[in-house]
Amino acid sequence: METIVLRARSMCKIPRWVDLHGLIISRLVIGAGPSGLMAAYWMARCGINARIIDKRETKIFVGHADGLRPRTLELFDSMGFQHRVLHEASESTEVNLWGPGDQGKLVRQALLDMTQADHSPYHNTRLSQGRIERFILDSIHENSDLRVERSVVTETLEYEEKLGLDPEAYPITVKLRTLSPEELNTPNSDKQNFETELTHEDLLQDDWDDLGQRGSHKEKVETVKAKYLIGCDGAHSWTRKQLEIPTEGSNTDHIWGVIDVIAISNFRKSKTIPHDQLRLTSTLADIRRVSVVTGTTGTILVIPRERGITRFYVPVQTCEAGTSDRFDRSIITPKMIKSRVQEIIAPYTFEFEVCDWWTVYQIGQRIATQVTRGDRIFLAGDAVHTHSPKMGLGMNMSLQDGFNLGWKVALAAAGTIKPETLKTYELERHPLAKMLIEFDRHWVNLFLDVEPGEKDTKAESMAAMSAKFENFAHGWNVYYPASNIVSKSPEHGDAAIPQNFVPGERIHPFKLRNQADGCPQWTTRLLKSDGRFRILLLAGDVRDSIQKQRIETFTQALGSRSASGSPLLDRYTGIPGRFESPIDIFTIHCSPWKEVEFFDFPEVLRPLSMSTGYAYDKIWCDDACIFDRYCDGTAYEKWGVDRALGTLVVIRPDQYIGWMGNIEDVEEMTRYFDGVLVRKPPVSEIPTVI
Amino acid sequence: METIVLRARSMCKIPRWVDLHGLIISRLVIGAGPSGLMAAYWMARCGINARIIDKRETKIFVGHADGLRPRTLELFDSMGFQHRVLHEASESTEVNLWGPGDQGKLVRQALLDMTQADHSPYHNTRLSQGRIERFILDSIHENSDLRVERSVVTETLEYEEKLGLDPEAYPITVKLRTLSPEELNTPNSDKQNFETELTHEDLLQDDWDDLGQRGSHKEKVETVKAKYLIGCDGAHSWTRKQLEIPTEGSNTDHIWGVIDVIAISNFRKSKTIPHDQLRLTSTLADIRRVSVVTGTTGTILVIPRERGITRFYVPVQTCEAGTSDRFDRSIITPKMIKSRVQEIIAPYTFEFEVCDWWTVYQIGQRIATQVTRGDRIFLAGDAVHTHSPKMGLGMNMSLQDGFNLGWKVALAAAGTIKPETLKTYELERHPLAKMLIEFDRHWVNLFLDVEPGEKDTKAESMAAMSAKFENFAHGWNVYYPASNIVSKSPEHGDAAIPQNFVPGERIHPFKLRNQADGCPQWTTRLLKSDGRFRILLLAGDVRDSIQKQRIETFTQALGSRSASGSPLLDRYTGIPGRFESPIDIFTIHCSPWKEVEFFDFPEVLRPLSMSTGYAYDKIWCDDACIFDRYCDGTAYEKWGVDRALGTLVVIRPDQYIGWMGNIEDVEEMTRYFDGVLVRKPPVSEIPTVI
Repeated sequence: METIVLRARSMCKIPRWVDLHGLIISRLVIGAGPSGLMAAYWMARCGINARIIDKRETKIFVGHADGLRPRTLELFDSMGFQHRVLHEASESTEVNLWGPGDQGKLVRQALLDMTQADHSPYHNTRLSQGRIERFILDSIHENSDLRVERSVVTETLEYEEKLGLDPEAYPITVKLRTLSPEELNTPNSDKQNFETELTHEDLLQDDWDDLGQRGSHKEKVETVKAKYLIGCDGAHSWTRKQLEIPTEGSNTDHIWGVIDVIAISNFRKSKTIPHDQLRLTSTLADIRRVSVVTGTTGTILVIPRERGITRFYVPVQTCEAGTSDRFDRSIITPKMIKSRVQEIIAPYTFEFEVCDWWTVYQIGQRIATQVTRGDRIFLAGDAVHTHSPKMGLGMNMSLQDGFNLGWKVALAAAGTIKPETLKTYELERHPLAKMLIEFDRHWVNLFLDVEPGEKDTKAESMAAMSAKFENFAHGWNVYYPASNIVSKSPEHGDAAIPQNFVPGERIHPFKLRNQADGCPQWTTRLLKSDGRFRILLLAGDVRDSIQKQRIETFTQALGSRSASGSPLLDRYTGIPGRFESPIDIFTIHCSPWKEVEFFDFPEVLRPLSMSTGYAYDKIWCDDACIFDRYCDGTAYEKWGVDRALGTLVVIRPDQYIGWMGNIEDVEEMTRYFDGVLVRKPPVSEIPTVI
Repeated sequence: METIVLRARSMCKIPRWVDLHGLIISRLVIGAGPSGLMAAYWMARCGINARIIDKRETKIFVGHADGLRPRTLELFDSMGFQHRVLHEASESTEVNLWGPGDQGKLVRQALLDMTQADHSPYHNTRLSQGRIERFILDSIHENSDLRVERSVVTETLEYEEKLGLDPEAYPITVKLRTLSPEELNTPNSDKQNFETELTHEDLLQDDWDDLGQRGSHKEKVETVKAKYLIGCDGAHSWTRKQLEIPTEGSNTDHIWGVIDVIAISNFRKSKTIPHDQLRLTSTLADIRRVSVVTGTTGTILVIPRERGITRFYVPVQTCEAGTSDRFDRSIITPKMIKSRVQEIIAPYTFEFEVCDWWTVYQIGQRIATQVTRGDRIFLAGDAVHTHSPKMGLGMNMSLQDGFNLGWKVALAAAGTIKPETLKTYELERHPLAKMLIEFDRHWVNLFLDVEPGEKDTKAESMAAMSAKFENFAHGWNVYYPASNIVSKSPEHGDAAIPQNFVPGERIHPFKLRNQADGCPQWTTRLLKSDGRFRILLLAGDVRDSIQKQRIETFTQALGSRSASGSPLLDRYTGIPGRFESPIDIFTIHCSPWKEVEFFDFPEVLRPLSMSTGYAYDKIWCDDACIFDRYCDGTAYEKWGVDRALGTLVVIRPDQYIGWMGNIEDVEEMTRYFDGVLVRKPPVSEIPTVI
C-alpha cells in the first residue's frame, strides 16, 4: 500500500482495438439516423470494432422527426444524456381537440391529459432529430473511437448462407464507395436546400464541426467483410431491397405537408370573448399546445417545438390510392401549405415569415415481412416500418429498435451472449411494428374528412384511441414474449413475486436514496446501459435478523461452486476490455436510510477495487429524502414488492425484466443466465502462451 | 407577408465587433479563474469587446476548489448550464460530526442537515473548479467570440487618474507578454506536475481541446489601453500590488494538507457492532458523507466528491504565527498526509492507491482594504479575500464577486447604465468579504485542538455556527444595502408589499407554469442572466374585473409619454447589438391556469416579433401542475404576495430585488430606473449621417 499512483484512473474509456486482417471489418451499421446511431451506441459502449456509414454528407441539423415519448427519455437517462435533451426540448402536458361547434365556428371539443402523473419521470417531449443525433454521437465519441463515415454508399451486398452457421466467420461482403463532393452536390431534391444553405449562425455551437465536414470527402471504393450487418437505411432501404424482403401495406391517398415555422397567429385570441364567458372558453388550445384542429375543409395537427417553432401537419392534396408511389412534389410550396392552414383555422389568422424546415409526404403504411437474414443481417427503424408521423412515434420506434438490436449484436460479437439470442430481435420488435401500423391506421382515419353526422364523435374517438394505445405509445408496455432472455414462468412455488413487475416489461422508475451518500437518484439513471445484465436484490427490511440471514445465504450462494460448477459472477465470459463479468448486482433495501450502514451488506454486494474504491453506487434504499419530493420511499409499495420478504429480479442490458424469483432461487436464476450468457471455458481449455 | 424567409433566424448570437483603433482594447479581465470567468461571461453576454488573459498555459483540470452552495447553482441556472453541473456533481444532504466518546473511541456527536427543504431547488454540491470553468467557458463561447488568452502575463500597469473622470477615455495602460513554452516549463512548484502530466485519458472529452493548447504559445509583447480592468488574479494578486492596496489580517500558524483520493477505508464499517446496537450507532458518517472528525491528535474534514473521489483536509504541522508567509513545503508529501489521516481516524483504517490531486497550504485570513481604483480598476475573488477552504465558500464568493461586478462593468461599458453604478460593487461585496473572514475565524477555530473539557461542546458549537451563518453561507442572504440599484424605502403609502421580498435580496425560487404551453419552469431559469433589468408584474387574480382594469392601466402607464417624457420601454439606451431596451417584463398571475388565456394580457406584456413570434415566455402562472410535484401553486403565498392586489417588483440583471411597489407606482418605478439607466438622447441630438 505504500506505492501511490498519481492519477492512474481513466475518466474516459478508450477501447483497445482488435487489429483484424486487412479490410475485414467485424460489424457494420448502415445508416446513421436514430436506429443506426442507437445500435452504434452499443458498439461503442461494448468496445466493438464496427463501421458506421451514412450516405448523407453531414448529420441532420433541422426538421425531420421530433416526438419523444417518456420511455425514450428513460432510455436516454440510462445512456447518460437525458439532461441535455430536457434542457433544450419542448414538453407538453395536455392535448386540445378543436372542431366546428353549433354555429360552425371552431370550438374546443376536448382537453385530454397527454400522460399520467408519476408514470415516468418524463413526459411527451419534442426536440429535433438532429439534436438527438448530436447527443448519441457525443456519447459514441465519449465511449470509443467509432466515427460515422459520411458520404459513403453501399454498392453490392453478398451474404454466404453457409458461413452464417459459423459464429466466427465473416459471411457478409459489402462494397462501399465514398462519394466525391461533386457527386453529392447534384441537386436531387428541394428538401436538400435546407441543409446545404445552413451556416454556423443557424446552428448550436456543438454542431459546427459537423457542418465543416461538407465537401471534405474523397472518392474511394473498398470491399469489406463483416460478421454482422445492420441496415438502418430508411423507408427505401437499400439493404432490404438487396435481401429481396418485400413490404406489405400500401400508400394512402393523402398527401400531407409539414412545416416548421415561427407562427404568428391569433388562434385562441380570446379578446373578442366577453369576460363573463371566459370560464367557458378559456381552456382552449393555442399554437403553443398540441392541438388537433378540424376546420370545415380538413384537419391539421399543431405541434409546439423547441426555440419557439411550431410544426403544422397539413392535408394538402389527395391522389388516387395505390396508383403510384410518387406524386408531383413540385406543385406544393410553403405558401400553399400556409393557405391550407389559413383555410382550416379561419376565422383565426395564421402567418409566418420564418420557416425552419418543410416537406411534403404521402403516407405509406408498410411493414417489411422479415427483419433479418440468418440473424446476421438485420433491418431496423423505417427500413421495417413506415407510417404517418402524426403520432410522434416514428423516431421512438426507430430508436427503440436500434436499442433492442444493438446490445444483442454487440454482445454476440463480443462473445458475451449466445448468438441465438439474436432471434429475439424479430420476436420482440416485429409485433410492435405491426401494432404501430395498426394504431396508425386508426389514428390517421381520425384526421381524414368525416361525414357531418360523425363530427361530434371525433373528440370521443380520439380520446378512446389515445387511452387504448397509451401504454404502447408512451413505451410503457412492450409485450416482449417469452424467450431465452425473458422468463415468463418462474420455476419456483408461491414466491413473493412483485405484483407489478412483469417479465418482458420495464421496471417503473422511482427515485431511491444512495445508502452511502444519501442522495436520491432515478432508477433510470442508476441502471446504466453499459452492456451488463443486472441482478436487483430487493433485500427488504434488512434490520430484521431473519432477512439479514437470507441476504447472507444469497451472497454465499452467489459465491458457491457447488450448485452449478463455478460461482455465478465468475461463470460467464465478460465484455472484453470493459467488464470482467457481464453481471452486475444492485441491492435495494427498504429499511429506514438512517438505520442501516453501507458496510452492513456483504462485500460481494459492494465490491472493492483499489482504483475505484468501494462500489458505493450499488446499495440503494427506498426511503424518503426530505430534500426531494420525488424520493418518497414508495417504490416497494408501487412495485408490489413485499417489504418483509423482498425479491430477486434480473434486468436485461436494456432494462427490461428478464427473470424474477425468490431470494433463495439462485439456481433457477443461474439457469436463466445459462440460457443467455456464454460460459467461460474451463481453465484447462484456455490456450496458454508458450 | 408574402415574402417567406427560409431560416432567417440565428440560433447563436455572434457579436459584431466594434473595430477600435490599433491596440486599444476597451476592457480587460486579468485571470480566468472563477471570478474572472464570471465577469467575462457578462462581457460575452452583453457583446462587450474585452480581452481575458491568464498566465496559466491551460485551464484547470483537476483539484482546487470544489464546493458549490445553492445560490451559486441558482445563478448557473440563470446562465443556462446548471443541468451540466448537476449531471456530474456530488450532492450532500447531511453533515456528520465525529469526536471521541466516553471511552475515547470515535463516536458520532451530531448529524446536522446541511440545508433546509424547499429553500432552493439546489443543495450543497461539489464539483471540481475545472469543470465549472469548462461550463462558463462554453457559455462565453456560445455568446461571443471572446476567448481566454493563455500564457499571458502582465508586466506594467499605468492608471491616469484624470482620464478616469471621462467615461469615454481609456485611462488604463497595460503591457502584456505571452510566455514561450520554454518559460512555462520551468518547474516552479510541485503542484504543477499534476497539470503537465495529464493526458486525454484523464479528462472528459470536452476538455481535450484545452489540453491541446499546451506548448502552442509564441512569445509576444504588446501594450494595450483599456477603459476598465478587472483583476481576478488570485491571492497574490499582481493587480492589487500594482495599485499598492494593502491587505489586512495575517497567516494563521497552521499548515494543512489537502488530498483528493479514491479512499479505501472501513471508517464506519459497523460489522463489529452487535446488531441490537445498530439503532444507536448506525447513522454515523462514512467517507461518502461530509464529516468533521476530531480524533485524539487533530481534526480532519472529509468531503465526498464526484467520480468516487473523497477530499481530506488534514492538519499537518504548526509553525510560528505571523513569522513568515512561507514554510517549507518540501517536507510534506501525500504519504505524510495519509499518515496523519490514519492517526486521526484510528482505529478505523485509511488507504489509497489513486491520488487525483493534492496540495498543502497555510491559512491566511486576509482582506484587501479596497477593491477598486477610481471605479475603473477592480479586484475580485481571492485578490480581495483569502481564508480557509473548509467552508466550501471560496469559489462561491469568487463566482458571486465576478457575477456582481461583471454585469455592472459590462453595462457601463455598453453605455447602458450610469457609471456611478460601479460604486455599488464595493458597497455590496466588500462587507460580504468581511463577513466571510469573520465566519472563517470562528469556523477554523473549531478545527483546532481544544482542551479536553471543551470536547463535548464542539458539536454544539459547530451546529450553532452553521445555523448562525447558514443564510450567508448558502448565499440566501447577501444584505446588499440601499444604493441607486437597491431602493430600500418605497415612496408609496401602505402598499401591498410582499412580506417576504426584501430589496437587495434574491427572490425565493419557485416553479411556475408557462401560460402558453402549461410547462413548469423554475424562476431561476426563466429569469435569464442576459443583462436586462426585469419588471415582474405580479398581476394577482386577473379573472377579477377590477384587477384586470388595474393591469390595463399599468400597461397604459408603461406606454404613456405624459408622466416622464417618454414611454418607459423606449426611454433608455439598450444593450447595443443585443437588446433594444434594457428592460424586460414578466407577468406572473395567480388565476387558475385553465381559466386564463395568453392573449388575455395586453400586448406590451407579450410583444410580437415577426422573427421570434409572440413572447410566449413572458406570461407565467402560479398554479399547480399535476405532472410536477414542485410546481404546486404556492409561490404567491410563500412570497407573501396578496393574491387580490398583486405587486410590482424590479429585478436587477443579477436577479436581486431592486425596487418594489404597487401596480400603480409606475412613476416611482421610473424614478428608480432613471437613477440607474442611461436615458436615450432626444431624437434631435442623435447625429445624422450627412
